[in-house]
Amino acid sequence: MDHEDKANRPTAQEERADIRSVSPQPTVVSDQERLARATLSFLAEPGDPVLGALLGSASPAEIVAAVSSGTEPDAALPAASRNTPGLVRAFKRWRGQLSQVPAQARLAFWERGGLRLVCPGEPEWPTQLDDLRDSRPVALWLCGQTDLRFACLRSVSLVGARAATAYGSHVGTEFGADLAGRGWTVISGGAYGIDACAHRGVLAVGGCTVAVLASGLSFGYPKGHHELFEAIAGTGVLVSECPPDRAPTRPGFLIRNRVIAALSRGTVVVEAARRSGALNTARHAREINRPVMAVPGPITSEQSAGCHELIREWGATCVTGASDVLELVTPLGEADGGPDRRPAVPADSLDPVTATVLQAVSRRAGRGPATIATLAGVDLDTVMRCLGLLAAAGYVQRCDQGWRGRHDPGSA
Amino acid sequence: MDHEDKANRPTAQEERADIRSVSPQPTVVSDQERLARATLSFLAEPGDPVLGALLGSASPAEIVAAVSSGTEPDAALPAASRNTPGLVRAFKRWRGQLSQVPAQARLAFWERGGLRLVCPGEPEWPTQLDDLRDSRPVALWLCGQTDLRFACLRSVSLVGARAATAYGSHVGTEFGADLAGRGWTVISGGAYGIDACAHRGVLAVGGCTVAVLASGLSFGYPKGHHELFEAIAGTGVLVSECPPDRAPTRPGFLIRNRVIAALSRGTVVVEAARRSGALNTARHAREINRPVMAVPGPITSEQSAGCHELIREWGATCVTGASDVLELVTPLGEADGGPDRRPAVPADSLDPVTATVLQAVSRRAGRGPATIATLAGVDLDTVMRCLGLLAAAGYVQRCDQGWRGRHDPGSA
Repeated sequence: MDHEDKANRPTAQEERADIRSVSPQPTVVSDQERLARATLSFLAEPGDPVLGALLGSASPAEIVAAVSSGTEPDAALPAASRNTPGLVRAFKRWRGQLSQVPAQARLAFWERGGLRLVCPGEPEWPTQLDDLRDSRPVALWLCGQTDLRFACLRSVSLVGARAATAYGSHVGTEFGADLAGRGWTVISGGAYGIDACAHRGVLAVGGCTVAVLASGLSFGYPKGHHELFEAIAGTGVLVSECPPDRAPTRPGFLIRNRVIAALSRGTVVVEAARRSGALNTARHAREINRPVMAVPGPITSEQSAGCHELIREWGATCVTGASDVLELVTPLGEADGGPDRRPAVPADSLDPVTATVLQAVSRRAGRGPATIATLAGVDLDTVMRCLGLLAAAGYVQRCDQGWRGRHDPGSA
Repeated sequence: MDHEDKANRPTAQEERADIRSVSPQPTVVSDQERLARATLSFLAEPGDPVLGALLGSASPAEIVAAVSSGTEPDAALPAASRNTPGLVRAFKRWRGQLSQVPAQARLAFWERGGLRLVCPGEPEWPTQLDDLRDSRPVALWLCGQTDLRFACLRSVSLVGARAATAYGSHVGTEFGADLAGRGWTVISGGAYGIDACAHRGVLAVGGCTVAVLASGLSFGYPKGHHELFEAIAGTGVLVSECPPDRAPTRPGFLIRNRVIAALSRGTVVVEAARRSGALNTARHAREINRPVMAVPGPITSEQSAGCHELIREWGATCVTGASDVLELVTPLGEADGGPDRRPAVPADSLDPVTATVLQAVSRRAGRGPATIATLAGVDLDTVMRCLGLLAAAGYVQRCDQGWRGRHDPGSA
């Protein structure tokens, strides 16, 4: 690994600072902004560059008001936004979608059904998505118990071909299980093949896995993965930047890949043919300076040709196991984060509510969230949010009975 | 490929100059020196560093005389040689071997039997071995029709594990056949596994292959490869720095590897476990700035673990086919040497005898060496030597009937 790689990685200290800056505080994003961002997710396609640029000079509510007004964009927008390139055509596109925006009641219905909308500035928003700049998602729809931001603090993307071979399926499953076994979150898409194997490997060892779908979460493409998605939501998170009932589009898969790349510390291509979409995820990762890794395979296999091309032509790191991956993505100044790694944030810097929840977790036996909520004297939502932080920070872990403290929660 | 790599590669012009400097002239090495070098190959082990250092200040004959004299090394050697480290112990070793040196008649017997001794300074000596400095072989025993120096001008080493898998055997055979099909010589050892597959791949397409044995050539280790060695001698060359009847020693295999690395433009490790001897050949190649390449394989195979280690830890280039290899070793300024590559030396710079032999080769039909000798009016040995040069330079190629001119012998 060269010095440049190291320069791009956060130190353990920076990572701790990152975790410290987040605590389960009430949202600072107004209901008006949340509604406007939800509306924009119906109007513009994911990654729309005009919207991305416009959000630098106008608020989501101002943009929604301008689109809805029916007047010329220049007249309806703040002065600073008027020179955004492509504005007129974008407004035309967005206005064509206005009829697709559901009533506010429908949004509330989805939220009651277990989906939640997370916006930039809210505690669960993964700030590493800011590296996407103008193509940062306008908001994310999530489904699942785990806090997305905490889950992704130590995460690796495992991606690869839909047409996986037996070899690739085996390797994807093993990498997923090994990374999860060492306390890392796995991020992937929702496709057949390598994506599914990676998730299943994580689920098999009770780890945390994140699926970023190219469709809306209620639509849930592919349909054949309905049960897999339910299992992922049970211990991890489902993520989409599309409105919940949106079907996937062909370009949507490629645009979605930037979110997979940006959420994680690094991207591993497990198996890919020369023109596989998985190489597109690797390209996104490289563009935002995240390490790109590839698993080698038989040169006689078309499904490994893309991996070899990454190693040979792009300088991707050749990885043969989870420890190779963690060597590249573990924060500097911290040993390879094995299952017994020390907490990433000192106990005395936890906020009072989180500290109370931690005290209610036993180190000897697992307890369910409801028990912990009763013991800590806080509501269940707060307990879940605090447990997410405590798990990401290394204090608690899931077990068959719910949650329990880790062996060595001592000083970090 | 970075600029440093390019800096270490000869340009096409340098290569042409290298070929031009060789012509089938009579040897300039005296019979006395040849006999002394043959004697030293019986006294010292291959790669003996004391002998290597000593040859910088004393002639082979002076060293043989000093060893035979029985007096103290300091008294028997030229003044400049007296400070060579390790001299006293080396002389003790070498004197213990004096009884092993056969009578001159025995040397002549071997030479009549098809072996030939080649010494530094002679036309067939591969000057790239000079990169080995103090561990340069004192002389080489050869067996086979092809001129070693010409054969190695465009050559690649293919090495790997004896315990090759079906995958490695397939890949070794394919690489051998593909490199030979593009006019390149393959160099390897004589072992079971990858070595044998590489040679067989070359032989299957009628190409030129070079086996560097760790035993003497008459001893021919392993015995089970007797027929393979005969086939190699038929179209290529067998090489050893040991006296012909010498059995191999365990360290001898590792020391032999430096010759494989130094003879070729680059070394490809086809399949190797983590502590395979093939990695030793790669280490030698790296020490003398030759490109090191490795073929990836399944991460589930122990026999590919050494290749992946080379790629990951050593920065070896990941190669998946002959064209990847040739991209790295083809002289700059020259396109990938396909089967129809242009001659590496212009026709008007051929010496008169070689030019006469070229005229006797037909472009339409193959002719045997005896026919060519009759047409050119030269003896058969000279024809064989000239055909070797012409083949290496791209003017002629072997065919079923013997030799024929290539399609485009035009100006280089």
